[in-house]
Amino acid sequence: MKTLTLYNFNTSYSFGIKEPVAEKDATVAQRLTRMKETFDKEGTRKTVESIIIVHEHNHPHILLLQMSNSYFKLPGGKLKPGENEVDGLIRKLTKKLSPIGTAPDDSPWEIGELVSTWWRPSFEQHTFYPYIPPHISKPKECKKLYVVTLPEKCTFAVPQNLKLIAVPLFELYNNQQRYGSVISSIPQLISKYRYVYLSLDEK
Amino acid sequence: MKTLTLYNFNTSYSFGIKEPVAEKDATVAQRLTRMKETFDKEGTRKTVESIIIVHEHNHPHILLLQMSNSYFKLPGGKLKPGENEVDGLIRKLTKKLSPIGTAPDDSPWEIGELVSTWWRPSFEQHTFYPYIPPHISKPKECKKLYVVTLPEKCTFAVPQNLKLIAVPLFELYNNQQRYGSVISSIPQLISKYRYVYLSLDEK
Ligand SMILES: [Zn+2]
Ligand SMILES: [Zn+2]
Ligand SMILES: [Zn+2]
Ligand SMILES: [Zn+2]
Repeated sequence: MKTLTLYNFNTSYSFGIKEPVAEKDATVAQRLTRMKETFDKEGTRKTVESIIIVHEHNHPHILLLQMSNSYFKLPGGKLKPGENEVDGLIRKLTKKLSPIGTAPDDSPWEIGELVSTWWRPSFEQHTFYPYIPPHISKPKECKKLYVVTLPEKCTFAVPQNLKLIAVPLFELYNNQQRYGSVISSIPQLISKYRYVYLSLDEK
Repeated sequence: MKTLTLYNFNTSYSFGIKEPVAEKDATVAQRLTRMKETFDKEGTRKTVESIIIVHEHNHPHILLLQMSNSYFKLPGGKLKPGENEVDGLIRKLTKKLSPIGTAPDDSPWEIGELVSTWWRPSFEQHTFYPYIPPHISKPKECKKLYVVTLPEKCTFAVPQNLKLIAVPLFELYNNQQRYGSVISSIPQLISKYRYVYLSLDEK
């Protein structure tokens, strides 16, 4: 059984704010058009996302980016064509969550195992399946989830328009309605680990 | 990304029948009493179960033991006190699914990764969680799921009162009502693998 060491979300990390990441598209329709054009050029869209695990009061918590009252995302994003998955995930996490100017090599992300792969049959819907659904020959997107842990200290810089929250497993579990099928499956996906909980003030 | 080689369920394997495995308890109440007595002596009940993956028409299928119209189980069972998890799983699979007299060392089970751990807070209910629920200090049972693959040929012997069935992932996914929370999570848990599908008649 693999062991993960988790640090306390409130005492280990500090949080700054940075400029919102600029939206590439002004409208949903524009975004859809851009995704389809890229699909025609590059094929299946490849994204990588992170299950960043910390603890609060000795229970694992997952870091989510809250985009709005009822829309949550795992930190991550789209790979460049040919980009290595781990490199791409570090690049995306650094861009989204580290202070401006942080080099990917100086970033705190400890990339662990790939734990799940999800497929999206159509760009029109936001539905992902943990397999390629029957009769889908060219899935539009393939999303891979990696486990990420953090060192005992690090500084986040969260884009002003987003909130970084730590959510306990029992809140995510079976809560597909609020978090969607991918995020609500995280408790199952990380249940194989044993956890060690460290808190800085306990040392 | 790890690759698993799957063989065709219908052409690779042959199936015999054997005597039903004798029930230890005559009633549900007796079973409950026995579980509680064992808990007092041995502590948390430790079970291991297998996600045996084969393929049909080049889609992964999971082997389930069908106990009745609407009750399905993963092959496996309870560990003896101090027994190694992999040894115990091989012992249980051989006892339940191999022809009588097969030695565990001659069994076909290729035990892969631990992919999930589930906890049961009470014997009265059949509910498992992929974490120890808050305020539960002594979970009654801990169930670990291992991925198992098979060689290109083997012979099963299924107890007369049970059926061994191969179920595709889309049938299990999101189907907690029919299969329960553990079995319906299998598609997520094994989505990280790449699969190679072999069929004997194709060689
Ligand atoms: Zn607590
Ligand atoms: Zn909390
Ligand atoms: Zn088919
Ligand atoms: Zn089938």
